[in-house]
Amino acid sequence: MPRTKGDHEARRRDVSEAVWRVLAAHGFGGLTLRAVAAELGATTGLLTHYFPAKRDLVAYALDLLAERTAARPRPSGGHGLAALRTALLGVLPLTAEAAASNRIWVSSWDTALSDPESSDDYAGKYAQSRAKLRDLVAAAQQLGELPAGDPERIAAGAQSFVLGLTVQALFAPTAFPPRRQVELLDDYLASLASRSVATPPPPSRGDEAVSP
Amino acid sequence: MPRTKGDHEARRRDVSEAVWRVLAAHGFGGLTLRAVAAELGATTGLLTHYFPAKRDLVAYALDLLAERTAARPRPSGGHGLAALRTALLGVLPLTAEAAASNRIWVSSWDTALSDPESSDDYAGKYAQSRAKLRDLVAAAQQLGELPAGDPERIAAGAQSFVLGLTVQALFAPTAFPPRRQVELLDDYLASLASRSVATPPPPSRGDEAVSP
Repeated sequence: MPRTKGDHEARRRDVSEAVWRVLAAHGFGGLTLRAVAAELGATTGLLTHYFPAKRDLVAYALDLLAERTAARPRPSGGHGLAALRTALLGVLPLTAEAAASNRIWVSSWDTALSDPESSDDYAGKYAQSRAKLRDLVAAAQQLGELPAGDPERIAAGAQSFVLGLTVQALFAPTAFPPRRQVELLDDYLASLASRSVATPPPPSRGDEAVSP
Repeated sequence: MPRTKGDHEARRRDVSEAVWRVLAAHGFGGLTLRAVAAELGATTGLLTHYFPAKRDLVAYALDLLAERTAARPRPSGGHGLAALRTALLGVLPLTAEAAASNRIWVSSWDTALSDPESSDDYAGKYAQSRAKLRDLVAAAQQLGELPAGDPERIAAGAQSFVLGLTVQALFAPTAFPPRRQVELLDDYLASLASRSVATPPPPSRGDEAVSP
Protein backbone atom coordinates (compact mmCIF):
# COMPACT_ATOMS: atom_id res chain seq x y z
CA MET A 1 0.00 0.00 0.00
CA PRO A 2 1.42 3.39 -0.92
CA ARG A 3 2.29 5.72 1.95
CA THR A 4 -0.04 8.70 1.97
CA LYS A 5 0.14 12.15 3.48
CA GLY A 6 -2.42 10.85 5.99
CA ASP A 7 -0.01 8.11 7.09
CA HIS A 8 2.69 10.67 7.59
CA GLU A 9 0.43 12.90 9.67
CA ALA A 10 -0.75 9.95 11.74
CA ARG A 11 2.84 8.92 12.38
CA ARG A 12 3.76 12.44 13.43
CA ARG A 13 0.79 12.48 15.81
CA ASP A 14 1.89 9.15 17.30
CA VAL A 15 5.40 10.47 17.83
CA SER A 16 4.05 13.63 19.49
CA GLU A 17 1.89 11.58 21.83
CA ALA A 18 4.80 9.35 22.76
CA VAL A 19 7.09 12.33 23.44
CA TRP A 20 4.35 13.94 25.55
CA ARG A 21 3.82 10.80 27.63
CA VAL A 22 7.56 10.42 28.24
CA LEU A 23 7.77 14.07 29.34
CA ALA A 24 4.77 13.74 31.65
CA ALA A 25 6.23 10.64 33.29
CA HIS A 26 9.97 11.36 33.31
CA GLY A 27 10.47 15.02 32.46
CA PHE A 28 13.14 16.37 30.15
CA GLY A 29 15.75 14.51 32.18
CA GLY A 30 14.17 11.23 31.08
CA LEU A 31 13.58 12.23 27.49
CA THR A 32 15.69 9.88 25.39
CA LEU A 33 15.26 8.32 21.98
CA ARG A 34 15.09 4.95 23.70
CA ALA A 35 12.26 6.03 26.03
CA VAL A 36 10.25 7.52 23.16
CA ALA A 37 10.84 4.41 21.04
CA ALA A 38 9.66 2.17 23.88
CA GLU A 39 6.55 4.31 24.34
CA LEU A 40 5.92 4.11 20.62
CA GLY A 41 6.67 0.39 20.34
CA ALA A 42 9.19 1.26 17.64
CA THR A 43 12.94 0.94 17.15
CA THR A 44 15.29 3.77 18.03
CA GLY A 45 16.46 3.44 14.42
CA LEU A 46 13.08 4.58 13.16
CA LEU A 47 13.17 7.56 15.49
CA THR A 48 16.52 8.80 14.27
CA HIS A 49 14.67 9.52 11.02
CA TYR A 50 12.76 12.18 12.97
CA PHE A 51 15.46 13.15 15.45
CA PRO A 52 19.00 12.68 14.18
CA ALA A 53 20.41 13.88 17.52
CA LYS A 54 19.26 14.21 21.11
CA ARG A 55 19.13 17.99 20.75
CA ASP A 56 16.62 17.63 17.91
CA LEU A 57 14.39 15.61 20.22
CA VAL A 58 14.68 18.24 22.96
CA ALA A 59 13.97 21.08 20.51
CA TYR A 60 10.95 19.18 19.26
CA ALA A 61 9.70 18.63 22.80
CA LEU A 62 10.00 22.34 23.62
CA ASP A 63 8.06 23.22 20.46
CA LEU A 64 5.44 20.62 21.27
CA LEU A 65 5.05 22.06 24.76
CA ALA A 66 4.65 25.59 23.42
CA GLU A 67 2.17 24.38 20.80
CA ARG A 68 0.04 22.41 23.24
CA THR A 69 0.09 25.25 25.73
CA ALA A 70 -1.07 27.69 23.06
CA ALA A 71 -3.83 25.27 22.04
CA ARG A 72 -4.95 24.66 25.64
CA PRO A 73 -8.37 26.16 26.17
CA ARG A 74 -7.87 29.12 28.50
CA PRO A 75 -10.76 29.90 30.74
CA SER A 76 -11.75 33.51 30.31
CA GLY A 77 -14.71 35.59 31.11
CA GLY A 78 -16.01 37.96 33.67
CA HIS A 79 -14.92 41.53 34.09
CA GLY A 80 -12.36 43.27 36.19
CA LEU A 81 -11.17 41.32 39.18
CA ALA A 82 -13.24 38.27 38.21
CA ALA A 83 -11.50 38.14 34.84
CA LEU A 84 -8.09 38.43 36.52
CA ARG A 85 -9.05 35.59 38.86
CA THR A 86 -10.14 33.42 35.94
CA ALA A 87 -6.87 34.05 34.11
CA LEU A 88 -4.81 33.16 37.17
CA LEU A 89 -6.86 30.03 37.83
CA GLY A 90 -6.06 29.04 34.25
CA VAL A 91 -2.38 28.78 35.17
CA LEU A 92 -2.81 26.48 38.17
CA PRO A 93 -2.70 22.64 38.04
CA LEU A 94 -6.38 22.28 38.95
CA THR A 95 -7.05 19.32 36.64
CA ALA A 96 -5.03 16.21 35.82
CA GLU A 97 -4.42 17.57 32.34
CA ALA A 98 -3.26 20.95 33.62
CA ALA A 99 -1.05 19.18 36.18
CA ALA A 100 0.62 17.10 33.43
CA SER A 101 1.19 20.18 31.32
CA ASN A 102 2.52 22.18 34.27
CA ARG A 103 4.80 19.37 35.31
CA ILE A 104 6.30 19.44 31.82
CA TRP A 105 6.69 23.22 31.96
CA VAL A 106 8.50 23.09 35.29
CA SER A 107 10.61 20.25 33.96
CA SER A 108 11.52 22.30 30.88
CA TRP A 109 12.97 25.13 32.98
CA ASP A 110 16.22 23.23 33.44
CA THR A 111 16.66 22.82 29.70
CA ALA A 112 15.52 26.38 29.00
CA LEU A 113 17.83 27.96 31.58
CA SER A 114 20.88 26.18 30.19
CA ASP A 115 20.48 27.76 26.76
CA PRO A 116 20.56 31.57 26.45
CA GLU A 117 18.31 31.64 23.38
CA SER A 118 15.74 29.38 24.96
CA SER A 119 15.97 31.31 28.20
CA ASP A 120 15.25 34.59 26.39
CA ASP A 121 12.38 32.91 24.61
CA TYR A 122 10.88 31.86 27.95
CA ALA A 123 11.43 35.31 29.43
CA GLY A 124 9.55 36.72 26.43
CA LYS A 125 6.64 34.33 26.95
CA TYR A 126 6.37 35.28 30.61
CA ALA A 127 6.54 38.96 29.69
CA GLN A 128 3.62 38.41 27.30
CA SER A 129 1.59 36.71 30.02
CA ARG A 130 2.38 39.59 32.36
CA ALA A 131 1.21 42.08 29.74
CA LYS A 132 -2.15 40.29 29.58
CA LEU A 133 -2.41 40.22 33.36
CA ARG A 134 -1.45 43.90 33.46
CA ASP A 135 -4.41 44.78 31.22
CA LEU A 136 -6.75 42.79 33.45
CA VAL A 137 -5.34 44.52 36.54
CA ALA A 138 -5.81 47.92 34.89
CA ALA A 139 -9.43 47.04 34.05
CA ALA A 140 -10.07 45.97 37.66
CA GLN A 141 -8.54 49.24 38.83
CA GLN A 142 -10.85 51.21 36.55
CA LEU A 143 -13.80 49.40 38.12
CA GLY A 144 -12.45 50.35 41.55
CA GLU A 145 -11.94 46.70 42.49
CA LEU A 146 -8.19 47.04 42.89
CA PRO A 147 -6.27 49.95 44.38
CA ALA A 148 -4.34 52.38 42.27
CA GLY A 149 -0.72 51.43 41.64
CA ASP A 150 1.48 50.35 38.77
CA PRO A 151 -0.56 47.58 37.07
CA GLU A 152 2.64 46.09 35.63
CA ARG A 153 4.01 45.66 39.12
CA ILE A 154 0.81 44.13 40.46
CA ALA A 155 0.77 41.76 37.46
CA ALA A 156 4.37 40.70 38.14
CA GLY A 157 3.42 39.89 41.71
CA ALA A 158 0.34 37.92 40.68
CA GLN A 159 2.31 35.93 38.14
CA SER A 160 4.97 35.11 40.72
CA PHE A 161 2.28 33.94 43.09
CA VAL A 162 0.63 31.48 40.71
CA LEU A 163 3.95 30.16 39.36
CA GLY A 164 5.21 29.41 42.86
CA LEU A 165 1.89 27.90 43.88
CA THR A 166 2.06 25.66 40.82
CA VAL A 167 5.49 24.37 41.85
CA GLN A 168 4.28 23.71 45.39
CA ALA A 169 1.21 21.87 44.16
CA LEU A 170 3.25 19.67 41.82
CA PHE A 171 5.53 18.54 44.64
CA ALA A 172 2.78 18.16 47.23
CA PRO A 173 -0.52 17.45 45.48
CA THR A 174 -2.00 16.14 48.74
CA ALA A 175 -1.16 19.32 50.66
CA PHE A 176 -2.28 21.50 47.73
CA PRO A 177 -5.41 19.94 46.24
CA PRO A 178 -7.35 22.14 43.80
CA ARG A 179 -9.62 23.51 46.55
CA ARG A 180 -6.59 24.63 48.55
CA GLN A 181 -4.98 26.27 45.52
CA VAL A 182 -8.15 28.23 44.84
CA GLU A 183 -8.38 29.28 48.50
CA LEU A 184 -4.80 30.54 48.46
CA LEU A 185 -5.33 32.45 45.23
CA ASP A 186 -8.48 34.01 46.67
CA ASP A 187 -6.55 35.00 49.80
CA TYR A 188 -3.99 36.65 47.55
CA LEU A 189 -6.58 38.54 45.53
CA ALA A 190 -8.41 39.60 48.69
CA SER A 191 -5.13 41.03 50.02
CA LEU A 192 -4.59 42.95 46.81
CA ALA A 193 -8.13 44.26 46.82
CA SER A 194 -8.18 45.21 50.47
CA ARG A 195 -5.40 47.73 49.97
CA SER A 196 -7.94 49.89 48.16
CA VAL A 197 -10.26 49.70 51.16
CA ALA A 198 -7.45 50.99 53.34
CA THR A 199 -6.81 54.02 51.13
CA PRO A 200 -7.32 56.89 51.31
CA PRO A 201 -6.59 57.13 55.00
CA PRO A 202 -9.39 58.50 57.15
CA PRO A 203 -9.32 62.33 57.18
CA SER A 204 -8.79 62.33 60.95
CA ARG A 205 -5.30 60.98 60.32
CA GLY A 206 -4.15 64.23 58.82
CA ASP A 207 -3.74 65.27 55.22
CA GLU A 208 -0.15 64.22 54.67
CA ALA A 209 0.14 61.53 52.04
CA VAL A 210 1.41 58.28 53.51
CA SER A 211 4.73 57.47 51.90
CA PRO A 212 4.56 54.25 49.90
CA MET B 1 54.39 9.59 48.28
CA PRO B 2 51.71 7.79 50.23
CA ARG B 3 48.10 8.94 49.72
CA THR B 4 46.80 10.56 52.86
CA LYS B 5 43.34 11.21 54.19
CA GLY B 6 44.02 14.86 53.35
CA ASP B 7 44.58 13.97 49.68
CA HIS B 8 41.33 12.10 49.64
CA GLU B 9 39.42 15.00 51.17
CA ALA B 10 41.03 17.46 48.80
CA ARG B 11 40.07 15.28 45.84
CA ARG B 12 36.49 15.03 47.08
CA ARG B 13 36.38 18.80 47.42
CA ASP B 14 37.67 19.23 43.86
CA VAL B 15 35.01 16.86 42.57
CA SER B 16 32.29 18.74 44.48
CA GLU B 17 33.44 22.05 43.05
CA ALA B 18 33.48 20.64 39.54
CA VAL B 19 29.98 19.17 39.90
CA TRP B 20 28.74 22.48 41.28
CA ARG B 21 30.21 24.49 38.38
CA VAL B 22 28.69 22.12 35.83
CA LEU B 23 25.28 22.43 37.53
CA ALA B 24 25.49 26.23 37.67
CA ALA B 25 26.37 26.43 33.98
CA HIS B 26 24.36 23.59 32.46
CA GLY B 27 21.85 22.39 35.03
CA PHE B 28 21.01 18.78 35.74
CA GLY B 29 20.29 18.28 32.06
CA GLY B 30 23.94 18.97 31.31
CA LEU B 31 25.34 16.97 34.22
CA THR B 32 27.39 14.18 32.67
CA LEU B 33 30.53 12.35 33.68
CA ARG B 34 32.20 13.86 30.64
CA ALA B 35 31.30 17.43 31.63
CA VAL B 36 32.50 16.94 35.21
CA ALA B 37 35.71 15.31 33.99
CA ALA B 38 36.37 18.23 31.62
CA GLU B 39 35.75 20.71 34.43
CA LEU B 40 38.11 18.75 36.62
CA GLY B 41 40.77 18.27 33.94
CA ALA B 42 40.54 14.52 34.59
CA THR B 43 39.55 11.44 32.63
CA THR B 44 36.03 10.06 32.80
CA GLY B 45 37.73 6.83 33.87
CA LEU B 46 38.87 8.44 37.09
CA LEU B 47 35.37 9.72 37.77
CA THR B 48 33.75 6.29 37.45
CA HIS B 49 35.65 5.49 40.64
CA TYR B 50 33.39 8.02 42.36
CA PHE B 51 30.29 7.56 40.25
CA PRO B 52 29.92 4.11 38.73
CA ALA B 53 26.69 5.17 36.99
CA LYS B 54 24.96 8.37 35.90
CA ARG B 55 22.37 7.97 38.65
CA ASP B 56 25.16 8.01 41.25
CA LEU B 57 26.34 11.33 39.88
CA VAL B 58 22.79 12.75 40.00
CA ALA B 59 22.23 11.48 43.54
CA TYR B 60 25.53 13.04 44.58
CA ALA B 61 24.56 16.35 42.98
CA LEU B 62 21.22 16.40 44.81
CA ASP B 63 22.99 15.72 48.12
CA LEU B 64 25.55 18.40 47.38
CA LEU B 65 22.77 20.89 46.66
CA ALA B 66 20.99 20.06 49.90
CA GLU B 67 24.26 20.28 51.83
CA ARG B 68 25.27 23.64 50.35
CA THR B 69 21.80 25.03 50.87
CA ALA B 70 21.84 23.97 54.52
CA ALA B 71 25.29 25.56 54.93
CA ARG B 72 24.26 28.80 53.20
CA PRO B 73 24.18 31.61 55.71
CA ARG B 74 20.54 32.56 56.16
CA PRO B 75 19.90 36.13 57.02
CA SER B 76 17.79 36.34 60.13
CA GLY B 77 16.96 38.96 62.64
CA GLY B 78 14.34 41.46 63.51
CA HIS B 79 11.01 40.66 65.05
CA GLY B 80 7.57 40.00 63.71
CA LEU B 81 6.98 41.20 60.17
CA ALA B 82 10.61 42.33 59.80
CA ALA B 83 11.81 38.80 60.60
CA LEU B 84 9.36 37.34 58.08
CA ARG B 85 10.63 39.79 55.46
CA THR B 86 14.23 38.84 56.19
CA ALA B 87 13.46 35.14 55.85
CA LEU B 88 11.69 35.67 52.53
CA LEU B 89 14.51 37.88 51.22
CA GLY B 90 16.83 34.98 52.06
CA VAL B 91 15.09 32.85 49.43
CA LEU B 92 15.40 35.31 46.55
CA PRO B 93 18.31 35.41 44.05
CA LEU B 94 19.55 38.80 45.26
CA THR B 95 23.27 38.01 44.91
CA ALA B 96 25.25 36.18 42.25
CA GLU B 97 25.84 33.32 44.68
CA ALA B 98 22.16 33.04 45.58
CA ALA B 99 21.26 33.19 41.89
CA ALA B 100 23.62 30.28 41.10
CA SER B 101 22.21 28.25 43.96
CA ASN B 102 18.61 29.03 42.99
CA ARG B 103 19.29 28.21 39.37
CA ILE B 104 20.50 24.78 40.48
CA TRP B 105 17.44 24.33 42.68
CA VAL B 106 15.06 25.16 39.86
CA SER B 107 17.06 22.90 37.59
CA SER B 108 16.79 20.05 40.11
CA TRP B 109 12.99 20.14 40.07
CA ASP B 110 12.89 18.14 36.84
CA THR B 111 15.02 15.38 38.34
CA ALA B 112 13.17 15.50 41.66
CA LEU B 113 9.70 15.36 40.10
CA SER B 114 10.58 12.30 38.05
CA ASP B 115 11.36 10.22 41.13
CA PRO B 116 8.63 9.68 43.77
CA GLU B 117 11.08 9.34 46.64
CA SER B 118 12.97 12.48 45.69
CA SER B 119 9.70 14.31 45.09
CA ASP B 120 8.47 13.41 48.60
CA ASP B 121 11.80 14.52 49.98
CA TYR B 122 11.43 17.91 48.30
CA ALA B 123 7.83 18.23 49.47
CA GLY B 124 9.09 17.56 53.01
CA LYS B 125 11.75 20.26 52.70
CA TYR B 126 9.21 22.82 51.51
CA ALA B 127 6.86 21.82 54.32
CA GLN B 128 9.69 22.49 56.81
CA SER B 129 10.30 25.92 55.31
CA ARG B 130 6.59 26.66 55.51
CA ALA B 131 6.56 25.65 59.17
CA LYS B 132 9.32 28.18 59.87
CA LEU B 133 7.47 30.87 57.94
CA ARG B 134 4.27 29.96 59.78
CA ASP B 135 5.95 30.64 63.13
CA LEU B 136 7.18 34.00 61.86
CA VAL B 137 3.69 34.85 60.60
CA ALA B 138 2.18 33.89 63.96
CA ALA B 139 4.72 36.11 65.76
CA ALA B 140 3.86 39.04 63.46
CA GLN B 141 0.17 38.44 64.17
CA GLN B 142 0.81 38.53 67.90
CA LEU B 143 2.49 41.89 67.44
CA GLY B 144 -0.58 43.07 65.51
CA GLU B 145 1.49 43.57 62.33
CA LEU B 146 -0.45 40.99 60.35
CA PRO B 147 -4.17 40.35 60.44
CA ALA B 148 -5.65 37.32 62.16
CA GLY B 149 -6.01 34.25 59.96
CA ASP B 150 -4.55 30.78 59.61
CA PRO B 151 -0.76 31.39 59.77
CA GLU B 152 -0.13 28.14 57.88
CA ARG B 153 -2.20 29.44 55.01
CA ILE B 154 -0.50 32.82 54.99
CA ALA B 155 2.90 31.06 55.06
CA ALA B 156 1.91 28.87 52.09
CA GLY B 157 0.99 31.99 50.14
CA ALA B 158 4.23 33.76 51.03
CA GLN B 159 6.30 30.75 50.06
CA SER B 160 4.52 30.51 46.71
CA PHE B 161 5.19 34.17 46.10
CA VAL B 162 8.97 34.02 46.64
CA LEU B 163 9.35 30.74 44.73
CA GLY B 164 7.55 32.15 41.70
CA LEU B 165 9.45 35.42 41.92
CA THR B 166 12.69 33.44 41.99
CA VAL B 167 11.77 31.63 38.78
CA GLN B 168 10.86 34.91 37.09
CA ALA B 169 14.11 36.54 38.18
CA LEU B 170 16.21 33.63 36.90
CA PHE B 171 14.67 33.85 33.44
CA ALA B 172 14.65 37.63 33.27
CA PRO B 173 17.41 39.03 35.48
CA THR B 174 17.23 42.37 33.67
CA ALA B 175 13.50 42.76 34.28
CA PHE B 176 13.86 41.54 37.87
CA PRO B 177 17.06 43.02 39.32
CA PRO B 178 17.48 42.72 43.08
CA ARG B 179 15.84 46.13 43.71
CA ARG B 180 12.75 45.08 41.77
CA GLN B 181 12.52 41.76 43.62
CA VAL B 182 12.64 43.56 46.95
CA GLU B 183 9.99 46.05 45.79
CA LEU B 184 7.66 43.25 44.74
CA LEU B 185 8.15 41.39 48.00
CA ASP B 186 7.46 44.60 49.93
CA ASP B 187 4.29 45.13 47.90
CA TYR B 188 3.24 41.62 48.81
CA LEU B 189 3.91 42.10 52.51
CA ALA B 190 2.15 45.48 52.48
CA SER B 191 -0.92 43.80 50.96
CA LEU B 192 -0.88 41.13 53.65
CA ALA B 193 -0.48 43.72 56.38
CA SER B 194 -3.09 46.09 55.05
CA ARG B 195 -5.82 43.52 55.46
CA SER B 196 -5.60 44.16 59.18
CA VAL B 197 -6.06 47.87 58.57
CA ALA B 198 -9.19 47.15 56.59
CA THR B 199 -10.80 45.04 59.31
CA PRO B 200 -13.05 45.42 61.09
CA PRO B 201 -15.17 47.21 58.50
CA PRO B 202 -16.31 50.70 59.47
CA PRO B 203 -19.50 50.52 61.57
CA SER B 204 -21.37 52.69 59.08
CA ARG B 205 -21.24 49.78 56.64
CA GLY B 206 -23.59 47.70 58.70
CA ASP B 207 -22.87 44.85 61.02
CA GLU B 208 -23.13 41.97 58.58
CA ALA B 209 -19.85 40.14 58.13
CA VAL B 210 -18.53 40.49 54.60
CA SER B 211 -18.41 37.05 53.07
CA PRO B 212 -14.86 35.98 52.25
